[in-house]
Amino acid sequence: MNKIITIEWRGDHVVMIDQRKLPHEEIYVKLYSYEEVAQAIETMVIRGAPAIGVAAAMGVALGIQKSSSKDAPSLKQDFLNIYERLYRTRPTAVNLRWGLERMKNCFENSLELSIPELKQALEKEAIQIYEEDVEINKKMGANGKHLIQNNSKVMTYCNTGTLATAGYGTALGVIRAAYEESKKFLVYVCETRPFLQGLRLTSWELYKEGIPQKVISDNMAGSLMAKGEVSAIFVGADRIAKNGDAANKIGTYSLSVLAKYHTIPFYVVAPTSTIDLKCPTGREIPIEERSPKEVTHVGGKLVGLENVDVYNPSFDVTPHELITAIITEKGVFDSLSRRLSSLL
Amino acid sequence: MNKIITIEWRGDHVVMIDQRKLPHEEIYVKLYSYEEVAQAIETMVIRGAPAIGVAAAMGVALGIQKSSSKDAPSLKQDFLNIYERLYRTRPTAVNLRWGLERMKNCFENSLELSIPELKQALEKEAIQIYEEDVEINKKMGANGKHLIQNNSKVMTYCNTGTLATAGYGTALGVIRAAYEESKKFLVYVCETRPFLQGLRLTSWELYKEGIPQKVISDNMAGSLMAKGEVSAIFVGADRIAKNGDAANKIGTYSLSVLAKYHTIPFYVVAPTSTIDLKCPTGREIPIEERSPKEVTHVGGKLVGLENVDVYNPSFDVTPHELITAIITEKGVFDSLSRRLSSLL
Repeated sequence: MNKIITIEWRGDHVVMIDQRKLPHEEIYVKLYSYEEVAQAIETMVIRGAPAIGVAAAMGVALGIQKSSSKDAPSLKQDFLNIYERLYRTRPTAVNLRWGLERMKNCFENSLELSIPELKQALEKEAIQIYEEDVEINKKMGANGKHLIQNNSKVMTYCNTGTLATAGYGTALGVIRAAYEESKKFLVYVCETRPFLQGLRLTSWELYKEGIPQKVISDNMAGSLMAKGEVSAIFVGADRIAKNGDAANKIGTYSLSVLAKYHTIPFYVVAPTSTIDLKCPTGREIPIEERSPKEVTHVGGKLVGLENVDVYNPSFDVTPHELITAIITEKGVFDSLSRRLSSLL
Repeated sequence: MNKIITIEWRGDHVVMIDQRKLPHEEIYVKLYSYEEVAQAIETMVIRGAPAIGVAAAMGVALGIQKSSSKDAPSLKQDFLNIYERLYRTRPTAVNLRWGLERMKNCFENSLELSIPELKQALEKEAIQIYEEDVEINKKMGANGKHLIQNNSKVMTYCNTGTLATAGYGTALGVIRAAYEESKKFLVYVCETRPFLQGLRLTSWELYKEGIPQKVISDNMAGSLMAKGEVSAIFVGADRIAKNGDAANKIGTYSLSVLAKYHTIPFYVVAPTSTIDLKCPTGREIPIEERSPKEVTHVGGKLVGLENVDVYNPSFDVTPHELITAIITEKGVFDSLSRRLSSLL
């Protein structure tokens, strides 16, 4: 398998694979400024909650590195501008804010240092966030892999793999971990309209690993469940509220209702950095609405009417009562509202 | 509004709008042989259960008209070849077989006639089936329109309009009839992957009528229901079993489960020619599986991996217990298993 580089720090720039071009073109882009990183997040060159957390942190490190400010107050102003710009890129995934918050703490704790040392401290922190993410994903894989039975069929949604993280993946990390144990199973990959992260990204990752898969349109999921073809469902999350409600890619909620109706376990796999204790319930999670063109155009090509009204929320909220358990790097939590707050 | 011609008899040929090219190109194709009609059904130049019933009937009339057989026995052999060819085109919609059966009865009842008279009788029968379909659709519209409230929001799936019938539509006919009564409502149009009949066809029909709409990806339906945004759901059917189970476009089953969970009425609108009393339950309805390319390619463009495994059933079955009522030209039936068999 060729190693996939979702994002990597390269001293004076950041490298990312352009996920909009996958699976047909493996194009790596080099970003030399925080503004380029912010645009890459907005336009979904990079996506996936943990991955954009890492990208935002690296964006901060890059912005500060390139700053020509000569004293702490003006560097602090630069920091705030960079922080604000990156903060505004996407509203739903809390990992992005979590990454920015860690960089802010690092910045504030480094104000005693010389400017070159402070720049180095931020660079180190961003790399640390990156490295920790890979480790956290592997732990989630280890914590969840027993939930995939040998000779079973599982379903996954959107992309939660290497491309959604610094590496390995969250829900796809659990699938990867079970496969590494030589378990045999089939993965049903929901294509995940409108951006087709399942069809384009998850399918590509599974293909590279040799994990057996079948791609389906999202609307086929219920019919497969009714036929007894789905043993368990694994999805990621972009933000988990204090009560265990989880925001994830639009369509996750429908899957969770279908899973409930067919008595199929429904697992959310996410690092604890996805948990937002300031959000009491899913109702307080901001849901991003994206361009109608994502629905009317596919692969850049207009398929529907040009100016038709479209509703295109990028996420929905699955209430905790429809989630069998949340798998984190700190363990598997199945009694969500009571246990989550004790985690952090 | 420009009149849409789904299919029309033109003396020595049949005209159809090529539905694969919509909404961007309104191209009418002329078909001069039954083989061309069969291929048009297979490749979805024309689709929709009632429409392909009409197409098959016209295909038979065309085939017999073009036959050079000089006596009844060889004409009968031609008839059987034509019948068999058209019968094999698509397996799920029973209306196709119903249309062929009517043509068969007409043929058998016309064996006393001269060959030119027999050809004329078949032509007349095909035109009759076409004209009846428009009338039947208008009756269904009248029977169902009270189920759409003023200032409400309804949801529809796939395309069940003029393009799916000889004219007017089944589920979309009910929506059209309510709109003709000056009711105000919004239609949520599910795009209906993989062939995108909602995004491409229903959206175009509603646009031509000026009926307010919002297009969504299929996976957004559940989230809208959870928000209280959907008052009722109207779908078509390709075959209804004796017990009231209904086969319809893949994804209908998922919608029906979501509707049940959110206590939203779920209506199937279909002519009685869709009811197949020889099928005791939905389990006996044959489900067509179509090319993986419908999922991996959109608008002719490869979006996913070229040779990835895909599951692409064209239909699924909604069990009668998830259907609030079936709206037919003979009335609205809400106690399905008991009432349907009394209909025919």
